[in-house]
Amino acid sequence: MSQDPSFYFPAPREQKFCSQCGTLNTNRLLEGDNRKRDVCEHCGAVHYQNPRLVVGTLPVWGDKVLLCLRAIEPRANTWTLPAGFMELSESMSQGAARETQEEAGANIVLGKLYTVIDIPQVDQVHVYFLAEALGPELDPGPETLEARWFGFDEIPWDNLAFRSVSTTLKHYIHDRSHEHFEMHHYSLAINR
Amino acid sequence: MSQDPSFYFPAPREQKFCSQCGTLNTNRLLEGDNRKRDVCEHCGAVHYQNPRLVVGTLPVWGDKVLLCLRAIEPRANTWTLPAGFMELSESMSQGAARETQEEAGANIVLGKLYTVIDIPQVDQVHVYFLAEALGPELDPGPETLEARWFGFDEIPWDNLAFRSVSTTLKHYIHDRSHEHFEMHHYSLAINR
Repeated sequence: MSQDPSFYFPAPREQKFCSQCGTLNTNRLLEGDNRKRDVCEHCGAVHYQNPRLVVGTLPVWGDKVLLCLRAIEPRANTWTLPAGFMELSESMSQGAARETQEEAGANIVLGKLYTVIDIPQVDQVHVYFLAEALGPELDPGPETLEARWFGFDEIPWDNLAFRSVSTTLKHYIHDRSHEHFEMHHYSLAINR
Repeated sequence: MSQDPSFYFPAPREQKFCSQCGTLNTNRLLEGDNRKRDVCEHCGAVHYQNPRLVVGTLPVWGDKVLLCLRAIEPRANTWTLPAGFMELSESMSQGAARETQEEAGANIVLGKLYTVIDIPQVDQVHVYFLAEALGPELDPGPETLEARWFGFDEIPWDNLAFRSVSTTLKHYIHDRSHEHFEMHHYSLAINR
């Protein structure tokens, strides 16, 4: 019984019913724990929730960087570096390379881990790898309206999708001018 | 209706029942997706699963490093650096500091992000920060049988809890001898 694609939605964090037996959960503090969990008093399953990793790349071809115009929410019609949620059974590098293939169809060689960005208000950590393109050819997938190479003076700063994208690009432009690329770890928390 | 603590267990990854309406899920490929998900055909909730972050520290006091003897499974009765699952609403640094407080009661100043370790076979990424202790006092919590300072020539290599712990310690000992601490990113995948 498969419905129209618009019928489906990502399940929210709150786990109202037990994933193991379908009983209504209780949100409460367990003995020895320090925060409330969604707990099943019927079978005993405790539904822990943890932040998610978003993995992506900063692909460079000569003096240009690859950006993708998002076809999907959130932030449809804004430009992003290729990135997405890390999946089970993959490393961060594999996830970043997969997302670059899926969203842009770019042929890249992955470089080193470049930015690691805490965004606690959305329970995410964003991670970007440096990447070198082997050619300018692109073949964007269904989540991308357009994939395009931008000169570093052409970046659409006013229409970027996420702060993790703009800060990663700014670090890169700075480091490129100094020919020295260090890993950057920082937080985009609202209250610091 | 609160049960004996041993009644409770962490819910496995497989989401048999819908978290939003309690209906039995279907495991299937959705249109436009590239892997099977636990999908509710009644309300439309899709239950994505993602790797988890484990955050911890490598606390140093002079020429000694802090290890904790685990009171709980997995790997009870083996030594670990203080670390645990990152929680919602916190940054990696906050999680690492929290775990160090909970497991060892050590008074530390957090340093920089030091190791980032992919472990795809258990769907985890482990992250360790450098840390300096402000004093040798320790006050281990219930997940720790004993917290202790070890000289770098006293580390119980044969009884460490996880490969992410032993490799992080080895990187530190090497970098300390060269007085240069770089971030290390690597994978502990079985098949590389």
